[in-house]
Order: sequence, then structure tokens, then C-alpha cells
Amino acid sequence: LTAPGAGSPVRGRPHAMVLLTGDELLQGRVRDTNGPFLTAGLIHGGYVVESLQVLPDDRSRIVAAVRAALAREVRVLVVSGGLGTTHDDVTMAAVAEATGRPLEYNESAWQLVKARIDEIARRRELQAADLYEQAARQAYLPQGARCLPPAGVAPGAVLDAAVTTIIVLPGPPRELEAMWPPVLAEVSGETAAPSVQLLRLWGVGEMAVVPVLEEAPHDALDVGVTAADGEIVVRLAWHDAVGATQAGGVAAALAAALPVFSNDGRTLDELVAEGLLERCATLAVAESCTGGLLGGRVTARAGSSDYFLGGVLSYANDVKENVLGVPAALLARYGAVSEQVAAAMAEGVKRLLGADFALSVTGVAGPSGGSAEKPVGLVFIGCASPDGVVVKEHRLVGDRDSVRHQAVTAALHLLRRSLGIGP
Amino acid sequence: LTAPGAGSPVRGRPHAMVLLTGDELLQGRVRDTNGPFLTAGLIHGGYVVESLQVLPDDRSRIVAAVRAALAREVRVLVVSGGLGTTHDDVTMAAVAEATGRPLEYNESAWQLVKARIDEIARRRELQAADLYEQAARQAYLPQGARCLPPAGVAPGAVLDAAVTTIIVLPGPPRELEAMWPPVLAEVSGETAAPSVQLLRLWGVGEMAVVPVLEEAPHDALDVGVTAADGEIVVRLAWHDAVGATQAGGVAAALAAALPVFSNDGRTLDELVAEGLLERCATLAVAESCTGGLLGGRVTARAGSSDYFLGGVLSYANDVKENVLGVPAALLARYGAVSEQVAAAMAEGVKRLLGADFALSVTGVAGPSGGSAEKPVGLVFIGCASPDGVVVKEHRLVGDRDSVRHQAVTAALHLLRRSLGIGP
Repeated sequence: LTAPGAGSPVRGRPHAMVLLTGDELLQGRVRDTNGPFLTAGLIHGGYVVESLQVLPDDRSRIVAAVRAALAREVRVLVVSGGLGTTHDDVTMAAVAEATGRPLEYNESAWQLVKARIDEIARRRELQAADLYEQAARQAYLPQGARCLPPAGVAPGAVLDAAVTTIIVLPGPPRELEAMWPPVLAEVSGETAAPSVQLLRLWGVGEMAVVPVLEEAPHDALDVGVTAADGEIVVRLAWHDAVGATQAGGVAAALAAALPVFSNDGRTLDELVAEGLLERCATLAVAESCTGGLLGGRVTARAGSSDYFLGGVLSYANDVKENVLGVPAALLARYGAVSEQVAAAMAEGVKRLLGADFALSVTGVAGPSGGSAEKPVGLVFIGCASPDGVVVKEHRLVGDRDSVRHQAVTAALHLLRRSLGIGP
Repeated sequence: LTAPGAGSPVRGRPHAMVLLTGDELLQGRVRDTNGPFLTAGLIHGGYVVESLQVLPDDRSRIVAAVRAALAREVRVLVVSGGLGTTHDDVTMAAVAEATGRPLEYNESAWQLVKARIDEIARRRELQAADLYEQAARQAYLPQGARCLPPAGVAPGAVLDAAVTTIIVLPGPPRELEAMWPPVLAEVSGETAAPSVQLLRLWGVGEMAVVPVLEEAPHDALDVGVTAADGEIVVRLAWHDAVGATQAGGVAAALAAALPVFSNDGRTLDELVAEGLLERCATLAVAESCTGGLLGGRVTARAGSSDYFLGGVLSYANDVKENVLGVPAALLARYGAVSEQVAAAMAEGVKRLLGADFALSVTGVAGPSGGSAEKPVGLVFIGCASPDGVVVKEHRLVGDRDSVRHQAVTAALHLLRRSLGIGP
């Protein structure tokens, strides 16, 4: 392939780096959501993100990393985490040291911190004055820094160091996510985001995409190919008219050769929700091995109550029989993990809840419970619709968690096809 | 506090760094699980992890980062991702360049790749020879490197560069997770993991922990405090007998002052599962605003079929009434989000499924649907047990996703207390 990788920065766009601090992130005890959130925002704001780095709560390591970023003359450096009140909160001091600006008491920061402390004390019926001493360090910012009002207790800071604007934000995702948009808007006023088209494919491997890409010109595009949970996402990004034309060509070539189910960025979940809403149709689910994950995913969308009625978690066979009305004879003859029982579960929950569409999932999620005839990963997905019931057999590869999540995705694809959306 | 931060390396322990490559990680399109997995393994293997860095699929950036790690003379450098067959897979070439070892054809790597390709071709009914050309680059490793057998198609590599052992692994989590344990065991034979005690608290804020820690000696401990989803985890790590004694003192002080529900690392989910198994008791759930997340979490555990019968997702009021038997008059008088309906849902599903314990969740997850009287975040959790039914009212703060996950955690804590486990 002759295309530049998606990582090849388009010349002239400003660069950015992100540093996250926190032993809990490095040790894998907490799943990081700040990194992707910050980098996605920077990219949308037109920045090339050079790297995202996670560091321990170790002042000297943070100082070294901030200095390395300043040496690379990135336009924006975001540093998050370590603004709390315990001994391992050293980020503001590290930024001060790296930039050669002493920490200074900042009156407006203190007023903001004090107001939050007073509020917490009121709510928890504590003496505010007892908390002041511990919180006072949050009012110290590097000399010349501007205070960012806190969403929790800890204020952030913005300071200019030569060509780099350093943005310091607290680590708790809720606080960071509230404080980030205004400061991002401020620093990205000057830049321009690329145009982006996302194509989504399901049912083929990543390797199937390469020969198709090779046949369509794409030297003015950034092309990224990602696989996750059985879905392939092709991301096309461009900055000019030639790129726009090439994106159209690549999209057409992919759609002609492969099962592209979305070419405008809409996700599987969005397509299914819109399909149900357009038909004014309702949905119910009957879950065995997924135990609620399918209902949980459907209801992750705000407004899902417009089409989702509910469902039955028929984990035990008695529930399949007594609540869903799956005939005991079917269970005895074919077993709970079978095409016949998947069909009866879907029909049973459709009838019980009076839904227009119903999905069912029954399978062997593992790690135990598999047999030669019914191995771990064997999952039957049923979809009952006004046109009848269809069942698909899947043989999924992966651990328990992966099999369950793949089964949920497969169920939504079966519903998508039953709604007549895409290949 | 005078304790060293958890980031202060205990002298003499070897250092490690992790580099992950991939535009999809940097751009926030894929959630990274490899980083925490690798760093947790390194820490368990006795390493101090200096940093975890995510880089774009950009050869020059990867070369620079590998060189920086070598310059710091870390004992182990793990580099993951970018070993595939598309244009943006440049990691092996970057490692070769950074170490000054040209890429060389490796016959054993090619035999392993070829065997995988033949298998894929057989399964998908393709011509293997058509795939060879594209896959051939995966047989090229830096001069002097040892080939790590692939779990997917891409082989990994291990090479020694001065004091640093570089381990190169593919990016797909399933492949990486299969290939990592043996190579980790090999490099960490010489090191010793710290002793670790985890204490879990629920129902207090992070700030409540600090004054208690201050009163107990802990200068021979690494102390880390983390908050997530309303749970506080205090991690005590030590390397000698003084540390062990101090850990006992800190644990006792915390348990005396605060609601510590676990002091041996066992999670909420483990405690609840063990509590049900010990009583030979069964569990059912009735979920409204969580839409299946509670059942999904309970069934994430292998073996949960020993106590989990299933449940009802009563998202629509008709389902609460017709399937769970919640009286229409209750719904009309108090509304679906009420103490009364939470109690009736728990009792209803307990009766319907014949369970010993039943949890119910009904609330306003938002972002819309809130009112002055019943704001977003108001959630009622019910637990029906052989002793009767209790309902707790929660006012949760956060977005839809956060409120739903906090509600699930709160439900499991209510069950834990109903089972008589902890404060």
C-alpha cells in the first residue's frame, strides 16, 4: 500500500500530547477512560496526538515527561490526575518544577475550593474548618497559571510555557469530562478537524479489506482499519477535495465487495434503534447465557423505552419452561442450547410481552459446560418478527466474557437484518 | 503524610516500560485492555513500571520511544501492536531500526505463520497461496531476535539490547493474553513480587481514609488509595516484616473507623456469590432502569448458574404489572420509581421464579425523565429475602451510564448486607 498511515501527520497541523498520572491506572486496577476521551477531543479539534502516556504518582517521572513534551514543542500538553489532597497527589508540583514556575497561592482557586468544601461539609454534617487544612494545597498553582474552576473539588490550571500550552485537569472522569470542553474549545479555535467517513463491516476478517483498498486510489486519504468484537471499522480521513473524491471511491469499492452495513458512521445500535422507531415497533428479549447483557446494551441508549418493553432472563431451565412457555419436551429432546429452544424462547417472550420483535440467546459461554457435540462458544440466536422466527447458529471463539459480548452483537445484527437494514 | 507514594520504587527492583501502538487506541475508537493487563503482570512479577505509553502507527515515533526506553536502561520493554499485514503495521521495523538490527527472514517464524494461514484458508475455503504474499512480512524479525509462537497469525519476538530485554507482542487482546504469561515468567524469574493487601470500603468518600491513615505508622508500606464507582480501594504493599506489621495496624485502624467490607482482596461480586453458595440459596432479579446490567454482572461469573435462576426486565410498566404482578394501583399512586414499586418488583420476581433472594432496581437513569420530585439519579433498590423485603433509596450523581452502573453496585451491596456479610 502506498497510502500514508493514519499516523502520518498532515503537515502544518499542530501537535498535542497527553500525560495521565496515577498508580491505579498503571497497575491496571482502574480502567482508564480519560485517555481516549482526551485524545478523541484533541483529534476532533484538529490536533495530531503524538502520544498518550500513563505515569506513576512519582514527581520526578512526571517532571521528566513534561520536560520531554516541552522539548518536542507540542502546541498542547494535557496532564491529568494527581490533583487530590493525599500524599501521592504531586502533579501540580511536578508541572511547576518542569516549567520553572514556583507554586503560588492563588486566591481565586482558594475561593472555589473553599466553596466546594463548605458544600461537602454541609451535606455530610462535618465541620468545614477541619477539612480546610487538607484542601489548602489545592489552591497552589504554578506562577502565572490561570485557574480552571473545579467540577468536583480540585481546580485545574492552564499555563503557557514557550510554544506549549499546558492544561492540567483532575483525574476523576466526571470532573475531567466537565472541565475539558470549554478549555479544548479555547485552544482549538485556530485548527481545523479533518473530514472523516467511517465504514462498518460485519462477518469478514480484517484481511479481506486489504485487497479491496489496494484497487482504489487513496494517496490523499488517511486510512485506518480496526477490528473489535467481530466488527471491522474502516476510517477514511481527508483534508481536501481530492481526498473527498477518493473517499467516495474507496467507500464504493468496499460496499461492492464486502458486507458494509453502515457507511455514515452510524453504529449497529443506532441503526437498530432507528429501524424500530421508524416502524413504531417494540422489542423484547429472552436471554440465557448472556444473562441480561443484551437488555443492558439495548437500554444503554437514552429513549430506548420508546421501543424496548423488557424481557426474561431465563438462566435456569425452569424459567424457560414456566415463564417463557418453552415446552419441557423440547428442552428434554434437544437441550437448552439448541435451535429449537432458541426459537421457542423468542416466540415465548414475544407472546408474553406482546412485542413486535423478540430476540433470544442461548449458548455455552464457558469455561465449563461444553461437550463434544455442544462446545464452548456454541450460541443460538433467535429473532421472532411479524414474519415468523429465524435462528442463527454461531461458533464463537474467546473466553466467557468475549463469547457473551460477541453473542449480544450477533443478536443485534440478526435484528438489524430482520428489520431489512443492510446486508 | 510521610509514607512513600506507591510510585516510589523500592530500591533494587528492576524497572519496566510498556509501549502500545495503534491509531485506534490513540483516537479513542477502541478501549485498551492490553495496557492494564501488561502492567499488572509486570508489577506482579516484581517490576516497577515506569510508564505506559500509547503511540500512533508512526514508525519514527515508535523508534524514538524505543530509544528513550533503552536510554533509561529499563530491564524490560514490552511493545505491543502493529504486527499485522496492513500498511500501518510498522512495529517490527521500528524496533529493528531503534536497536540497529536489520529485519531478517526467520524460517521458524515463517513456518508458524504459514501453518496459521493454511488453517485459515481451509476454514474459509480460500487459496492459501493467495494469502502468503501479504503474510510474508510477518516472518521478518530483527536480527538476533527469538520468535514467539503466534496465538493468532502474527508471531512475537524477544531480543536483548544491552541491559534491556525487548518483548514484542501482537495487539489483539486474545493473542497478546495467550502469548504473555510464558514470556513474563521467563523474564521475571529473578524478581520478587511485593506482598499486597487490598481493603475495600463502600459508603464513604476518599477523603475519609486520610485521617485514619495518618494515625497508623506506615513508613514501610506503599499505600495507594483509589475510588471507582463509589468503592474505595486501599492497597497496602510491602517487602519485609516491618511492612507486614504495619499493614496489620493500618488494616485494623481502617476497619475500626470505616465501613471496610473486604480486607482480603475478595470483591463484592465474590463475597455475594460465596454467601449465596454457602446458604445454598438462589437469586432472581427484576430490573427496570438497569435493563439487564445487574443480571449481566451476576452471570459474568462462571458457575453463577449454581445460584442465579434468572429474572425479568420490566422496562415497561405493563411488564411490571402483567409479568411481575405489581398492582396497577401502586403504579398509579406512587409511580414506577418508588419504594412501593421496588418492593413489589422484588417480591414479584421472587415468587415468579421461586427464588430465596430477589433484587429489584427502579430509577431515573436520565438524561431525561427527571422531575423536581423524582430527579435524575433517584434509584430505589429492593431486596426480598426469607426475612422479608427491604428497600433503599439512592440519589446517584453522574450520567446515564454511571447511574446505571452505580445502581447495580448498590444492589449487590444490599444483597451482601442481607446475606449478613460485612457492615
